[in-house]
Amino acid sequence: MRRQQILSAALRCFALQGFHATSMADVIRESGLSAGSVYRYFPSKRALIKAGAEDIFAVARDALAEVLNAPEPSSPAVALKHLLTRLMSVADNEGVDRTRVGVVAWGEALRDPELLDDLRGLYLRIRQDFVAVLERWRTAGHLPADADVTLAGQVLFGTMPGFLLQRLILGDVEIEGYVAGLATLTGAAPTSPAGLPGR
Amino acid sequence: MRRQQILSAALRCFALQGFHATSMADVIRESGLSAGSVYRYFPSKRALIKAGAEDIFAVARDALAEVLNAPEPSSPAVALKHLLTRLMSVADNEGVDRTRVGVVAWGEALRDPELLDDLRGLYLRIRQDFVAVLERWRTAGHLPADADVTLAGQVLFGTMPGFLLQRLILGDVEIEGYVAGLATLTGAAPTSPAGLPGR
Repeated sequence: MRRQQILSAALRCFALQGFHATSMADVIRESGLSAGSVYRYFPSKRALIKAGAEDIFAVARDALAEVLNAPEPSSPAVALKHLLTRLMSVADNEGVDRTRVGVVAWGEALRDPELLDDLRGLYLRIRQDFVAVLERWRTAGHLPADADVTLAGQVLFGTMPGFLLQRLILGDVEIEGYVAGLATLTGAAPTSPAGLPGR
Repeated sequence: MRRQQILSAALRCFALQGFHATSMADVIRESGLSAGSVYRYFPSKRALIKAGAEDIFAVARDALAEVLNAPEPSSPAVALKHLLTRLMSVADNEGVDRTRVGVVAWGEALRDPELLDDLRGLYLRIRQDFVAVLERWRTAGHLPADADVTLAGQVLFGTMPGFLLQRLILGDVEIEGYVAGLATLTGAAPTSPAGLPGR
């Protein structure tokens, strides 16, 4: 698939030489396609970084949809575990870690209002999914009936970039341990309910 | 103080035109000092970004030291609240948000092994402080005696970049709400113990 071929080439370039030092010409050369083909899919570097972020976020949303569609409600730790497991399963893209594009995108978004808007939309949807996970967990009686799941969802969502950052910068976190840590904080066992696929 | 004057100038440049588009000449011009003065303090842009990150982290460490030195142990939510409150109190630097340099530093560190090493050292110390907060909380009987505070500390630490990122990208989180969200997840009230200064 051509779109993916170009994106992979761009990710390799970003990883090797950084986002700013990478030109569209570099991406075209690395992709092995014509300039016309590349520009048809991605008119700019911003479009590439946006698409890279969207791909990663699509995986995250799929994972949370599985959590939300499972017959039994998931604890916060189980939902996070499922999400991180799915993310890590696609992180490696021909030797280049695709989650790095997320961190690069954060920095870029701070000086590019259009990219900021795009990222904001992606983040808000994922955070809303986390809120839905907590709503279900509350309905099942595991949180007080008056628990503010919107606020708790901010924190649960926040543990995800917290993991990615520690994984990339500190290099010493693992999904199992991190999720066990969340379970310790929340007082809920990180074991999976029946019916969650792919575990 | 000259060092701070240069750092402030650099932060303004980074915020206005981005890290990569900023040259040392820009920083020198913005600072109003001589090139010799600026280079004496900061030999490179990396040194500037490292110093910016160190300054923010020094504030974080001071805040956690206050938490750890308070007569009574703090809950995870209280410790986070104290930390974030201190961070936000210094975030505004003559109209430029100093926490932005943190996000820029994350992206830079991924392609600069020396900066990565520097940041790793800073992060590890703060995370260790969070672990110490949890150790004290466990000793006070608020966590099971066999709770793994090292793993829980990864998650508690992770909620901090999670907050900064949502604040900068989504722009819709507040300390009070975020900390209340953590308290909801952890089942501990976010009220402060006696003896924590500055609240």
